[in-house]
Amino acid sequence: MRIEKRLAELGLVLPDRMQLPPGAQLPFPWVRVHGSRAFVSGHGPLNPDGSLAAPLGKVGDQVSPEQAYEAARLTGLAMLASLRRELGDLDRVTAWLRVFGMVNAAPGFVAMPSVINGFSDLILRVWGEPAGSHARSAVGLAELPFNLPVEIEAEVALRP
Amino acid sequence: MRIEKRLAELGLVLPDRMQLPPGAQLPFPWVRVHGSRAFVSGHGPLNPDGSLAAPLGKVGDQVSPEQAYEAARLTGLAMLASLRRELGDLDRVTAWLRVFGMVNAAPGFVAMPSVINGFSDLILRVWGEPAGSHARSAVGLAELPFNLPVEIEAEVALRP
Amino acid sequence: MRIEKRLAELGLVLPDRMQLPPGAQLPFPWVRVHGSRAFVSGHGPLNPDGSLAAPLGKVGDQVSPEQAYEAARLTGLAMLASLRRELGDLDRVTAWLRVFGMVNAAPGFVAMPSVINGFSDLILRVWGEPAGSHARSAVGLAELPFNLPVEIEAEVALRP
Repeated sequence: MRIEKRLAELGLVLPDRMQLPPGAQLPFPWVRVHGSRAFVSGHGPLNPDGSLAAPLGKVGDQVSPEQAYEAARLTGLAMLASLRRELGDLDRVTAWLRVFGMVNAAPGFVAMPSVINGFSDLILRVWGEPAGSHARSAVGLAELPFNLPVEIEAEVALRP
Repeated sequence: MRIEKRLAELGLVLPDRMQLPPGAQLPFPWVRVHGSRAFVSGHGPLNPDGSLAAPLGKVGDQVSPEQAYEAARLTGLAMLASLRRELGDLDRVTAWLRVFGMVNAAPGFVAMPSVINGFSDLILRVWGEPAGSHARSAVGLAELPFNLPVEIEAEVALRP
Repeated sequence: MRIEKRLAELGLVLPDRMQLPPGAQLPFPWVRVHGSRAFVSGHGPLNPDGSLAAPLGKVGDQVSPEQAYEAARLTGLAMLASLRRELGDLDRVTAWLRVFGMVNAAPGFVAMPSVINGFSDLILRVWGEPAGSHARSAVGLAELPFNLPVEIEAEVALRP
């Protein structure tokens, strides 16, 4: 349980399963495992109880760049929680491969990379290199579900 | 031909190959097969004859949420048509892995998940679980080609 | 060195490593290799010296469709430069699989496919078919980092 130890060392606590906003139906799993690969659905930032973490809205307007960095970090913790629930043991994640970081960008806000660094910095701090190293894009979407400031999807490699 | 039987049971008919709008040149295949994986290019909703299905435009403005759900379902049928043409037999698709659902979102429209459920519900109805289960993101794009209301790309696993 | 020969035949020169704009920190590699797969991070158009290629901004407004086609072509050259640095030999890329083309679209600009053809045409010219053939989406983002007119990510297959 190397990764669990590392999370404890860093004082990181993973949130509960996402509490869906009223009326939302998401007919798909948060993690889809296939052989030695896992595809991770788009995640957003959660509070420890699984509710959506405030502030919601557009980065560069209702959400500051610093708040958005923190939202990306919380999105990472939510993703780790989903991976742990699905895999049992986070040590099964042997390599991060692809990260697609989506920022709910107010018109003219272009510092998406600094925002998504909240996610990348977390993954690198927990897994280290080379396992935590990942290809990445960080781009500005027109709208995100539930007014999330940040949504991130990923692909990781698994120990079978 | 288990999937063909299932399509017939559900009364689903797959559209003809997409009729490109005048002047459009798309120098890529709708499906790229590589070993036991197939990458599916971004598809949009088609009429049975392969023309773009109306209404086009922004969801939450020219296109209602209900029309957009139907567009996502038609996008799924167009994708199945492309997979059938490429693979010969849809039974070769043994697992849906990743679905990236893009909605042409009017400002303030954030119910992207309900829209892309039109696609996910179709895939689950045809393939069932676990084969039809897929990781997913459903997000709002600023613009989509040809004013499509919905565009979806995917990755699936194949029986070799 | 078949691909190097082909680049020389076509008179194509790959740019230097990207010069990061002041203050930018990108804690991820441009290419993530895992076994026989390589995931390529989102790239933008570069000048030969690695600086961002002008014009920057929105396609359909500050950037014309023709300039955006050229930006997509330059993005392809930047990606080939990253792959060469990572792999040593571009002949190791045996198949292009998935291309995700993102255009910084001005409101109402929907000719994203014609723009991203600048990338696809290049890849096909260099690798030919079937190796250069790829699944693709070409869509309009609300904002791109550094006001890039085009950003493209990809996945390719490698000879081990």
